[in-house]
Amino acid sequence: MSDSELDILARQLRVDSVRAAAAAGSGHPTSSMSAAELMAVLIARHLRYEFDRPDHPGNDRFILSKGHASPLLYAAYKAAGALTDEELLTFRDRGSRLEGHPTPRALPWVEVATGSLGQGLPVGVGMALSGKRLDRIPYRVWVLCGDSELAEGSVWEAAEHAGYEHLDNLTAIVDVNRLGQRGPTRHEWHLSAYADRFKAFGWHVVETDGHDADAVDRAFQEAESTAGQPTVVLARTVKGKGVAAVENREGLHGKPLPDADAAIAELGGVRDVRVEVRRPAAARTMHAVRSGHLELPRHEVGDAVATRTAFGQALAALGTARGDVVALDGEVGDSTRSEYFAKEHPDRFFECYIAEQQLVAAAVGLAARGWVPYASTFAAFLTRAYDFVRMAAVSGADINLVGSHAGVAIGQDGPSQMGLEDLAMFRAVHDSTVLYPCDAHQTGRLVARMAELDGVRYLRTSRGDTPVIYGPGEEFPIGGSKVLRASDADRLTVVAAGVTVHEALAAAEMLGREGIAVRVVDLYSVKPVDRATLREAAARTGCLLTVEDHRAEGGIGDAVMDAFGDGRPTPRVVRLAVRTMPGSATPAEQLRSAGIDAASIAAAARLLVERAVVR
Amino acid sequence: MSDSELDILARQLRVDSVRAAAAAGSGHPTSSMSAAELMAVLIARHLRYEFDRPDHPGNDRFILSKGHASPLLYAAYKAAGALTDEELLTFRDRGSRLEGHPTPRALPWVEVATGSLGQGLPVGVGMALSGKRLDRIPYRVWVLCGDSELAEGSVWEAAEHAGYEHLDNLTAIVDVNRLGQRGPTRHEWHLSAYADRFKAFGWHVVETDGHDADAVDRAFQEAESTAGQPTVVLARTVKGKGVAAVENREGLHGKPLPDADAAIAELGGVRDVRVEVRRPAAARTMHAVRSGHLELPRHEVGDAVATRTAFGQALAALGTARGDVVALDGEVGDSTRSEYFAKEHPDRFFECYIAEQQLVAAAVGLAARGWVPYASTFAAFLTRAYDFVRMAAVSGADINLVGSHAGVAIGQDGPSQMGLEDLAMFRAVHDSTVLYPCDAHQTGRLVARMAELDGVRYLRTSRGDTPVIYGPGEEFPIGGSKVLRASDADRLTVVAAGVTVHEALAAAEMLGREGIAVRVVDLYSVKPVDRATLREAAARTGCLLTVEDHRAEGGIGDAVMDAFGDGRPTPRVVRLAVRTMPGSATPAEQLRSAGIDAASIAAAARLLVERAVVR
Repeated sequence: MSDSELDILARQLRVDSVRAAAAAGSGHPTSSMSAAELMAVLIARHLRYEFDRPDHPGNDRFILSKGHASPLLYAAYKAAGALTDEELLTFRDRGSRLEGHPTPRALPWVEVATGSLGQGLPVGVGMALSGKRLDRIPYRVWVLCGDSELAEGSVWEAAEHAGYEHLDNLTAIVDVNRLGQRGPTRHEWHLSAYADRFKAFGWHVVETDGHDADAVDRAFQEAESTAGQPTVVLARTVKGKGVAAVENREGLHGKPLPDADAAIAELGGVRDVRVEVRRPAAARTMHAVRSGHLELPRHEVGDAVATRTAFGQALAALGTARGDVVALDGEVGDSTRSEYFAKEHPDRFFECYIAEQQLVAAAVGLAARGWVPYASTFAAFLTRAYDFVRMAAVSGADINLVGSHAGVAIGQDGPSQMGLEDLAMFRAVHDSTVLYPCDAHQTGRLVARMAELDGVRYLRTSRGDTPVIYGPGEEFPIGGSKVLRASDADRLTVVAAGVTVHEALAAAEMLGREGIAVRVVDLYSVKPVDRATLREAAARTGCLLTVEDHRAEGGIGDAVMDAFGDGRPTPRVVRLAVRTMPGSATPAEQLRSAGIDAASIAAAARLLVERAVVR
Repeated sequence: MSDSELDILARQLRVDSVRAAAAAGSGHPTSSMSAAELMAVLIARHLRYEFDRPDHPGNDRFILSKGHASPLLYAAYKAAGALTDEELLTFRDRGSRLEGHPTPRALPWVEVATGSLGQGLPVGVGMALSGKRLDRIPYRVWVLCGDSELAEGSVWEAAEHAGYEHLDNLTAIVDVNRLGQRGPTRHEWHLSAYADRFKAFGWHVVETDGHDADAVDRAFQEAESTAGQPTVVLARTVKGKGVAAVENREGLHGKPLPDADAAIAELGGVRDVRVEVRRPAAARTMHAVRSGHLELPRHEVGDAVATRTAFGQALAALGTARGDVVALDGEVGDSTRSEYFAKEHPDRFFECYIAEQQLVAAAVGLAARGWVPYASTFAAFLTRAYDFVRMAAVSGADINLVGSHAGVAIGQDGPSQMGLEDLAMFRAVHDSTVLYPCDAHQTGRLVARMAELDGVRYLRTSRGDTPVIYGPGEEFPIGGSKVLRASDADRLTVVAAGVTVHEALAAAEMLGREGIAVRVVDLYSVKPVDRATLREAAARTGCLLTVEDHRAEGGIGDAVMDAFGDGRPTPRVVRLAVRTMPGSATPAEQLRSAGIDAASIAAAARLLVERAVVR
C-alpha cells in the first residue's frame, strides 16, 4: 500500500470510528482518531495475521491495551475484511460482538480483554515470553497503549520483565495524545519523559510523529529489526485528529462527536478501502502435549505433609506428565514450593520476581498461547493482582492461581503475610473454581484436576504440616465434598476445609467422648459447593457449624449458604471465622485466639446442641 | 556520635537483631544486618524524632518498607531508649508489641503497617505530600526499602508521583543487599540499574557503600540538602553482614542464625549503647479543623440525581465545613464527581492519575498525618489496590474509599468498567464499613457520616440517575436500613440497595396490583448489617428475596445471611444477583439480562409466594 493510500486508510479508520460511536450514541471516537495512522500502518504493512485462522501459530499478536479505542480496532477489522460495515454499526448494541471494550469471548481476533488500563503490556509480555522461550516461532507481539495508562505501576512491572528477558519480539506503541479522560496527562507531549523511563528499563526507544505514516512505518521497521531489546514506539499524536471541532480539546473523552455528519464530511466521507494483511509464515505449534502417565507422590496416612509441599510435588509431577504445563512464581518459590517444578522443568518455569500483577498477567498471556499456567505466591499477595484476575475472567482465560500461607495458621509472621480475604476475592470472580485442600493426597489430585477446568481456578495451600488423612487412590471431584464422620445420631454438622478439617476432627473426637455425635464435612471445593451433601447434612442434623481460617465474610460460611439460596428452608447455622486482627503467635495460639481450633469448635458445638435440646 | 561510635552502634543493632530472632526462633536477622549502618547513621545523626511524643507535628517520619527487617527497627527503638532489652526479647511472642512485621496498632512510633513489599514508599509519598502541600512543616519522610521490592509496580507509581510533585522532603533508602527471599535479585549489585530508573522518574540519586558509616552520613546529608527533587540513597550492602557464616549466602532468608551465640561473639557481644535522637523543631499542626456548618445540597423528592453526583456535591460541602477533609482521585474525577471538590478546594485535592495503588497509599499516608481522605475512582478499578486496602486495615488507617460506576447498570461500557466484586472485596476487610446508597440525600448523609468512623470505609455509587426518595432531613445510621414498604399482609421481603431499591419498589407496585403484598428493605449499610430489621422482616414475612447489582458471592445476599449466623432458625432466602458475564447493552437491558430488574423481582416473588402457599 502506497503512502497516499495509507493516508486514505487512516481517514477511513477515523470515519468508521466516528460512525460506530455515532450509531451507538457512546464510545471513544477521539481516542480512536489519534491512533489512526498507527493502526493503518500496522495492518497495511507490518502485522502478519490470518483472520480466517486466528489460532494460526505463526500469527502476530495485537493487543489494544487502550481498550476504550475499540472503534478503531473494529474499523481495522472491517478494513481487513473480517467485519462487515453493517456489523460495525452494531457497536455497543446488546448482543453485538462489538462490545464497548474488546473481549476474546466475543471476537476470535481479540487476544485478551482490555478496558482496565495498564494490562495490555503485562499480558503481551506473557505472550512474547511464550514466543521467545517456548513456541520458538518468530511472531511479534504488538501492544497499542495510551499515554495515560503509563502511570500504572503494572506497566513498569511489564517494562522491567520485558527488558530483563530481552524480548525483542515485543513492540509497545504508545499513542501520546496528551489528554487523559479528565484533562492533560502528567507529561503531555514530553515524549522524552517516557523515553527516559523506557530506556532505563532496558528498552529500545523510537520517537515519532504519529500522524506521519511514513515516519510510523520507519519506526515499526526499526522495532522489527532491533535485536536483544523490546522496542517502544512513542508516537506524538493529537486526540480527535482530523476533525477541527474536537482536535486536542478537553472534555470530549468518551463521547460521540457533536456533529458526526460534518466530521465524516471533513474526513472525506465514508470509504471502503480494503487492506491485504500480510500472512504469517508457516509455523507449527511446538508445545505438543507429551501426555505421559501422571505419577503423583504417595504418602502414608498419618504422615505430616504441608499442602504447599504437596502442591509443589504434584506440580512437578504434572509437568512431567504434561508438556503444556508451565509455572510462574513471585520470587517466593521456596515458600510456595513451586521450586520443585523449577528444578525439574527449568525451561518451563518463569521467575516473575516480586511483581504479582505481572505474575498473573504473564500467566494470562501464556494461557492465551495455549499453555496451562500455574502462578503461585502467598495468598495474601494475590490481592495485589485482583484487577488482573477480574479481567482474566472477562477474557475467559484458563489460568491456575495458587496462594500459599493461608490464614492465621502461618503463625508468627503476622497479619501482613496471612491470606484472610482470598476466598472472598476468588469466589466473587465469575465462573471461578475455588479449592482448599486439607491433606497431601487431596492436594495432588486437585492440582492435576485444575488443569482441565475452564476459567480462573484458585488453590489455597497452607504453610504448616497437616496429617495425611486420605488414601492415594481417593477421588476428589470438583464441586464435591467428603463426609469424614457421620452417624444416625449426629446432632450437628461441622463444615471445615484446609487446616480446620483437622481441628474439626479433633473436636468431633472430644465431643464423641462426651456422647455428642457430630458429622464432619471436608468442603475442599469451596466453589462450586456441594449443595447435595450440605442439604443432606442439614436435613439429618438440623444445624451447621462452619469453621474457617479466613474472614467471616465471603468464605466458607457464605459458600455453605449458597446451598440454601433457592428458597428452601434453611438450617440453623453458626460461623466460626477470623474476626479479630491477629498479631504474632504460634500457629496453635493463632487458631485458639481466632476461635477456630478444636476446643473452640467443641465449645460452640456444645452450646448449639444444648440450644437445640432446649427448643 | 563519632564515626567509631557509629560503628559500635551498628554492631549493637546487628547483635540485637540476632538476639531477637534467636529468642523468637524465627524472623529475618540477615535482612536486618545488611541495613545496620543505614539505621545507625539515621537515628544517630539525621532523624528528628521525639519518642515521648510520637504525635509531635514536627517529627520526621520513618517507614520500614522492608517490614521483615523488624528486628532492626526494634533494635533501633531500644538504642533510642524507647524499648527495654527485656521487651526486645519478646519479639514475635503472642501479645508482644514486637510483631513479626511492624504495625502502628502495636507501637506508637510505627507510621504504617508494612510486610507487603512495595507499600512503604507509596505511603511515604502521601506523608511527604502532606508535609509539603498541607502541613507546611519541614519534617522529612525517610523510607527504608529492600532491593527486591523495587520490582513492584507500586514503587514506580510512587516514584512517578514523588518526582512529579518535587517532594524534596522525601528520602528513599534502598538496602541493596543483592539477595531476595529465593535467591539473587534481577539486578544484584548493579546499582546503576536502579539509579537509571529513579533518575528517569525525576529523582536525585546518591550511590553509596552501605557499610561505610561516614559515606552513608554524607549521602543522607546530600538528601537533606537537595532541593526540588526527592532523593534515593542506593546503598550497596551485604546480607548477613558481620557474621562470616551467613554473609551474602543464599537460603538463609527469614531464618534465625544457625549459631546465635557465636554470631554475637563475632559481632563483639551484647552492648547497651544509647542514642540521643535529635529533637524536631517546634511545630504546630496547621490543619486545625475549621468546623463550619455542613450544608448538604437539597433536592425535591422525585428529582433524578445520580448518587455519584450527590457524592461529589456532598464532598465539596463537607470540605467547606471541615478543614481536615482532603480528596484524591485516579484521573476520573469528572466521572466520580470528585471534581466538584477539586474546584472548590483545589489546595486539598490530589490528582493521582491512573495509579490506583498510589491513590489508596497516598490516602493512607495523609490519614496517618491526621487528614480525612476521600479517595475515589471506578469501583472496578479499586480492585487494583486491594492489597493496599488490606494493609490499611492492618494499619488501622482511617480512610474513605469511593467506587463509582457500580454494577451492570453502567450500561454500554461493558464488564471491564463494572464494579461487580467490590462489595465482596470490601466486606472481607477487617473492621470495614460498606455503604451503598440509592438516592442523593442518603448519599450526602453517608458521605458526611463516613468521616467520623474508624477504619476502612467504602461507599459505592452509581453512574445513572435515580429518583430522590428520601427527604433532606432523613437520618441514615451506620448499621441501619430503611423499611420502605410494609404491611401486616406482607408475604415476602425484598432486600435491595442502590439501583435495585428502585427496581424493588417498582416490583412491589406491580405485585401490589396483583394482591401480593411485599415488604421492601433498603439495605444501604451493607456492613455492618441491620440484623434486627432483617430478623423482624424474616419473622413477619417468612421469606427474603435479596437483589443486587453485584456478583452472587460476597455481596448483599451474603450480608443478609450475616443476620442469621448465630444459630437461630433462618428464613427461606432467594438471591438475585449478576450470574453471567455482561456484554454491552443499555442500563435497562443490562438489569433485565442479569435478572435484577423490577420484572425479574416480581417474577421471583410470585414463584416464592406460590411455593409458600403450596407448602
